[in-house]
Amino acid sequence: MREQAYRDPVHGFILVNADYLRQLIDTPEFQRLRRIRQLGVSYGTYHGAEHSRFGHSLGTLWIMQQMLDRLEHAGFSIAADVRITALCAALLHDVGHGPFSHALENLLTQDKTHEAWSQAIITGETEINKVLRQVDESLPQQIADVLGGSYAGPAFVAELVSSQLDADRMDYLLRDSLYTGVTYGHFDLHRLINTLQLVDQHVVIQAKGVVAVEEYVLARYFMYWQVYFHKAIRSHELLLRAAWRRAVRLWQEGGLSAQHVTPGLVPVLSGSCSDVGQYLLVDDYDVYSSLKQWRYHPDPILADLADRFLARRLLKPIFKAPHTSDVAAQLEQARTLVQNSGWDPDYYLQVDHTRNLAYDTYTEEAGARRVPTIRAVTDAGRPVEVTKLSEPIRAVAQRPREAVNVYVPQEVVAQVRALFTAD
Amino acid sequence: MREQAYRDPVHGFILVNADYLRQLIDTPEFQRLRRIRQLGVSYGTYHGAEHSRFGHSLGTLWIMQQMLDRLEHAGFSIAADVRITALCAALLHDVGHGPFSHALENLLTQDKTHEAWSQAIITGETEINKVLRQVDESLPQQIADVLGGSYAGPAFVAELVSSQLDADRMDYLLRDSLYTGVTYGHFDLHRLINTLQLVDQHVVIQAKGVVAVEEYVLARYFMYWQVYFHKAIRSHELLLRAAWRRAVRLWQEGGLSAQHVTPGLVPVLSGSCSDVGQYLLVDDYDVYSSLKQWRYHPDPILADLADRFLARRLLKPIFKAPHTSDVAAQLEQARTLVQNSGWDPDYYLQVDHTRNLAYDTYTEEAGARRVPTIRAVTDAGRPVEVTKLSEPIRAVAQRPREAVNVYVPQEVVAQVRALFTAD
Amino acid sequence: MREQAYRDPVHGFILVNADYLRQLIDTPEFQRLRRIRQLGVSYGTYHGAEHSRFGHSLGTLWIMQQMLDRLEHAGFSIAADVRITALCAALLHDVGHGPFSHALENLLTQDKTHEAWSQAIITGETEINKVLRQVDESLPQQIADVLGGSYAGPAFVAELVSSQLDADRMDYLLRDSLYTGVTYGHFDLHRLINTLQLVDQHVVIQAKGVVAVEEYVLARYFMYWQVYFHKAIRSHELLLRAAWRRAVRLWQEGGLSAQHVTPGLVPVLSGSCSDVGQYLLVDDYDVYSSLKQWRYHPDPILADLADRFLARRLLKPIFKAPHTSDVAAQLEQARTLVQNSGWDPDYYLQVDHTRNLAYDTYTEEAGARRVPTIRAVTDAGRPVEVTKLSEPIRAVAQRPREAVNVYVPQEVVAQVRALFTAD
Amino acid sequence: MREQAYRDPVHGFILVNADYLRQLIDTPEFQRLRRIRQLGVSYGTYHGAEHSRFGHSLGTLWIMQQMLDRLEHAGFSIAADVRITALCAALLHDVGHGPFSHALENLLTQDKTHEAWSQAIITGETEINKVLRQVDESLPQQIADVLGGSYAGPAFVAELVSSQLDADRMDYLLRDSLYTGVTYGHFDLHRLINTLQLVDQHVVIQAKGVVAVEEYVLARYFMYWQVYFHKAIRSHELLLRAAWRRAVRLWQEGGLSAQHVTPGLVPVLSGSCSDVGQYLLVDDYDVYSSLKQWRYHPDPILADLADRFLARRLLKPIFKAPHTSDVAAQLEQARTLVQNSGWDPDYYLQVDHTRNLAYDTYTEEAGARRVPTIRAVTDAGRPVEVTKLSEPIRAVAQRPREAVNVYVPQEVVAQVRALFTAD
Repeated sequence: MREQAYRDPVHGFILVNADYLRQLIDTPEFQRLRRIRQLGVSYGTYHGAEHSRFGHSLGTLWIMQQMLDRLEHAGFSIAADVRITALCAALLHDVGHGPFSHALENLLTQDKTHEAWSQAIITGETEINKVLRQVDESLPQQIADVLGGSYAGPAFVAELVSSQLDADRMDYLLRDSLYTGVTYGHFDLHRLINTLQLVDQHVVIQAKGVVAVEEYVLARYFMYWQVYFHKAIRSHELLLRAAWRRAVRLWQEGGLSAQHVTPGLVPVLSGSCSDVGQYLLVDDYDVYSSLKQWRYHPDPILADLADRFLARRLLKPIFKAPHTSDVAAQLEQARTLVQNSGWDPDYYLQVDHTRNLAYDTYTEEAGARRVPTIRAVTDAGRPVEVTKLSEPIRAVAQRPREAVNVYVPQEVVAQVRALFTAD
Repeated sequence: MREQAYRDPVHGFILVNADYLRQLIDTPEFQRLRRIRQLGVSYGTYHGAEHSRFGHSLGTLWIMQQMLDRLEHAGFSIAADVRITALCAALLHDVGHGPFSHALENLLTQDKTHEAWSQAIITGETEINKVLRQVDESLPQQIADVLGGSYAGPAFVAELVSSQLDADRMDYLLRDSLYTGVTYGHFDLHRLINTLQLVDQHVVIQAKGVVAVEEYVLARYFMYWQVYFHKAIRSHELLLRAAWRRAVRLWQEGGLSAQHVTPGLVPVLSGSCSDVGQYLLVDDYDVYSSLKQWRYHPDPILADLADRFLARRLLKPIFKAPHTSDVAAQLEQARTLVQNSGWDPDYYLQVDHTRNLAYDTYTEEAGARRVPTIRAVTDAGRPVEVTKLSEPIRAVAQRPREAVNVYVPQEVVAQVRALFTAD
Repeated sequence: MREQAYRDPVHGFILVNADYLRQLIDTPEFQRLRRIRQLGVSYGTYHGAEHSRFGHSLGTLWIMQQMLDRLEHAGFSIAADVRITALCAALLHDVGHGPFSHALENLLTQDKTHEAWSQAIITGETEINKVLRQVDESLPQQIADVLGGSYAGPAFVAELVSSQLDADRMDYLLRDSLYTGVTYGHFDLHRLINTLQLVDQHVVIQAKGVVAVEEYVLARYFMYWQVYFHKAIRSHELLLRAAWRRAVRLWQEGGLSAQHVTPGLVPVLSGSCSDVGQYLLVDDYDVYSSLKQWRYHPDPILADLADRFLARRLLKPIFKAPHTSDVAAQLEQARTLVQNSGWDPDYYLQVDHTRNLAYDTYTEEAGARRVPTIRAVTDAGRPVEVTKLSEPIRAVAQRPREAVNVYVPQEVVAQVRALFTAD
Repeated sequence: MREQAYRDPVHGFILVNADYLRQLIDTPEFQRLRRIRQLGVSYGTYHGAEHSRFGHSLGTLWIMQQMLDRLEHAGFSIAADVRITALCAALLHDVGHGPFSHALENLLTQDKTHEAWSQAIITGETEINKVLRQVDESLPQQIADVLGGSYAGPAFVAELVSSQLDADRMDYLLRDSLYTGVTYGHFDLHRLINTLQLVDQHVVIQAKGVVAVEEYVLARYFMYWQVYFHKAIRSHELLLRAAWRRAVRLWQEGGLSAQHVTPGLVPVLSGSCSDVGQYLLVDDYDVYSSLKQWRYHPDPILADLADRFLARRLLKPIFKAPHTSDVAAQLEQARTLVQNSGWDPDYYLQVDHTRNLAYDTYTEEAGARRVPTIRAVTDAGRPVEVTKLSEPIRAVAQRPREAVNVYVPQEVVAQVRALFTAD
């Protein structure tokens, strides 16, 4: 058994000693993650954040390995096939991400989320699928079930892969924090892992670990407001999305054709991308190279949006309100104003509604798929949902931090702001 | 005076408070550096090293600022225009780098180094040039002179920008070390800066700073052998260069045309790129997007090399010798062997000669442009070249660490190795 | 002007360039702080925490310097004498601490807190006083006024020295975090400092700094519960206090005399220490050396307590309740039980009530001296108390985290626990 | 099996899961190491370096554990008793250190080094001995043999405990570097450990590990010259030694008696300390408390030296020469000059000869006990001494960095310097 050591800026070394894991890492589908930036366009604001999904996926695997080792060390036995499923699910959980990760997600292939693509890649005709089937014919489906929330094995597997206390979040908080150069995402990974235990096959934190969980939840809270919802980053993303929407429209109307884009982009742009093979051809490089071309396209809107994106001439945020419905009338006026100033408001007036709960108890709402909550053991030894034990977590869970921002070109910012502050 | 703070993973914060510097950073030519990876293909081996020239250029500016502040604080007066020249030269020293930095450098535009392109961009018709001329009409030429080694102002300016103890090296050692995840590149930046002084307008280290210089020179020594000359990285670069050479040949022979490449690549591929405008259109994204297309090109060599590069199916190193001349006969046999196995040796047998002096006293050779040595003050107060004072630096300066490796496809590695070890 | 650079594990370098500051650092009264541990007996639990008040005091000076520089850089002018007062107050704020800092504080000299001793040392016949008077005759009194809360100068001076957002707390959180080896105390010092401003001479945080304040307040919250109130540390402190109380009693009854203690301890032990000269003779070394002797003292209680302290044979915590009053009856039974088992309950049954608000709005209670709250500017530009803007801070401010623990010898722990859980 | 986790500023967590190891840590003899500073008086110059031998001993254990795990993981089998011996020897290697570690070593008990005391404590009537004998009756002697160089088991045990590449050095370089706040002592611990292997039961580094060894040897080189041989630290040590020598003389002449010292110091001061029980009573606290008393002693020399030590009024270095023999005549004149100025040259003129090889091949000299060299495997697979493979190590091994400094009181420094620079 050969051990492979991957140097990692976050974890120091990531040690991988199973052959099938190394083979998965070497598949073209996994290597493609090197060409998908972890934080989309955030590097435009935090210049260090140029990292890709590749390192994050390795880091998630590494944390999963440590969590499973910890559980076994603490006396919980884990069947060999369950362990393999958990490790593969951690490594592959993001393999379906497309260009710029979340920034373009629902625009590129509207009917399929990145999770759905991950499942499709794992179960479809890919090198990843081949490697997995060499381990066990049923392995691809088991991993897809973990990612899809229907895994029939022990509950802790899906919880460690995707819950409010999972390997994914732990890695991205630490990693994004290092690369952006902020300190907010730090928490005590080692202690957190060392307070994990299983109760009825569910992950539960020991009583002594509650403070470590608090630190972790607050780290997420801080990262959302300092990095993930940073207004300059959102504005940069809005430009990317506007340019993409314009390109799609021109394509439909015949104003854009294969000569203006990289070959890989054609299926997604034309809305005909449905198979895994086509989807896997696309990455950040296609979008970037096409945007570079579009700067010189005859359509003035596409050319301007592409140039704005590349030169980072951002739309400016001018307003924040708790709810869009409160400002419907003003928004209508603003659209007219932007239009009259010569800008197409479909592209140059953007309403951005950000909303996040750093921790969600799901007590109030229903409908959307619920991400498992965090449970901890009381001093009396009973597992309870963690807000029962922690005031700071209760605080950030109480109600979402929410903002609505309106973005318009610098030239009309003063006039539009006046509309919203008139009364 | 508004101060801009750039969060940086290496330096924490980079503070920029001059308007002209912020304007330079915002030019499209400088923003383009975000699309040029600092370490070419090294991310393939050290997955964290996905950083671009953009952050390194900001870091170099920041170190220059601190060095100038230190000198002024220590009582050396620096004229305002000299300070501006030094800061701009630090910020812009790499603005002429092309795709993948050094990995493709002499292939893309054979007659022009990245330094020459930097000078051309600074003095040519660019946004950078405009910003500089608003400060002072002569500023572009002064900066170009600093980069070209002909600056008429005080000697320390060119030394701080480009010598064996300059802001450039200080930043890249720390930065590459952080992103690769190795520890080798660390040294005590603060102490090093705080022992700088001027003697007759030349940079000289105080006697008490010699150990800090030793640490810095050794850091460079370690980085060369652990990162910059890593055999897997070299092999990956050789594939890139081979693919590029094949593409150029096909272009010349008519086997490759504009439809197979991004528009930006056409001038460089056809060898007609001579103006700054054309050159600035090209970045990593063009090369990458074109390689992705070439995987499906009818020419089997181009298609195979592109696919090998993207999937990281590397040629394997099989030999190292101190000098190529010693193995000329065996190399000839190896070429025949590779050819007979069905591989074109022009692309599939690569001889790689690496050679570096972590510190160069230039005592033995002549001819090439000499990079200024490091000088320090003796206890008696006399400035001398630093190997006079330090045994470790003398050791790494004594003779170059040098290796010759031959790379061939995995399939023939055993046979080729046998040729070299026969006798 | 000579600059002195002190290497510091927390801040890298602490640069001191005023002569009077260097002279203050070199006084015997300030050097004595090297012999007072910052965290009392915490090193018994977190073995790395062996640091003294000396480094913390330098660190507090350094943060004060950076805060004042920031304010001036942001356009707020600070008079030279105000700056001097602020720097000296930061450097000297802990100079009155006695052996083991807080652990013995109210036992050694019951009528005087360490703050009162700091003022007495600054205004009394000391080297510190001499250095200060050479700068300005009124300086000692001004500094004492800052520490005592009666400074007539601008309000921000006292706020930066002693408030809920002061240089003292900022340094100790970072420093204690580093030395204990936990991660909890980290926050973004640089950003916090860079969002300071003055409104009507009061310190107010800019709106964009609220998240940095949240991180800082939460860091304090975490440090209290993971380090400062750690039960093993509290138990170790209780042993020290018990041994001291026993020694005082024996001294009063004639069972302990000058031959059993270091000369410096005599005045404090006999309760006659009232002057600065006597007080300054005492430090951790006197207490430690005396405890080492007491292990062999004929009084079995003193000998046992001293030996327990040195060998870390701790009393065990067996209970926690929100309020002492709730368990008065059981406590009485426990005393009897401990007594009947052969232990004097005055020393071997300890009730420890810990209570902390990581942030205190002082809305509910009155009486005790209030530590200034943190104020920040709203988006509308109005300064408000920070819980108005932040849910996480509101959460930790809402009600104190409070615990009552009872400590008894290991031998009776089971029996005593039964008393409290009977019903 | 319960696992104990010790938080450590250097290693994050030190995990100890064998009962006998935890019991050893809890013995009074091991706990006493908390009262012996790791770097003697160095905290006077690097204020952060207040750490004790306790943390270093835990750290050495931790590195040993990781090295043994690595060897087993790499396929080398280690017998259970050999493993236990190695772990205990690592943990206990410094248990015989006396006050201020090396600074007073050969003065306190002139016939016994700290290594000899360690062996005596391990094999004598101590708690440590009891714990060890419960594991195996022969264990104490085996550990003493390892420390004494006569262990009959496999060679690698003594090499990992005490050689030029041992757990001791690895821990102290990292630890001293962190606490002093310098960067010099860093090296890549993880990589170094991961390139260990055994050849004929000897420790040998893999070829790919040579650069990591270079980094480690250079780290030691830098630490010697920036920290361990720092002139202010040496001067502070010389004061301590002078005060001690004066106290011994006064004791012999009847000028000092038990009332002037802590009880523990009496045996060592009177030269009658020969048993382990007496020796273990002494630690830094005795020396410090006694020095505090001696400030007020009637002997002016003792009082002055004690006060100088505590207030850090250091003797000043005025000269450095490669060899003492070269300056014999001038030294004689200097003695007279110091004497005529009213200072007793036995205490106020100190000649300090520092000499270190960061790595020693022992090729030139003989006699002294040789510390095993470092061996590495060549590309051809043959183990050779490491200077055969590395120029930087050869450089620092070539000849010792050596200095002779003369220290005298500030008042005569100019006159004495003139003597040495006359010709």
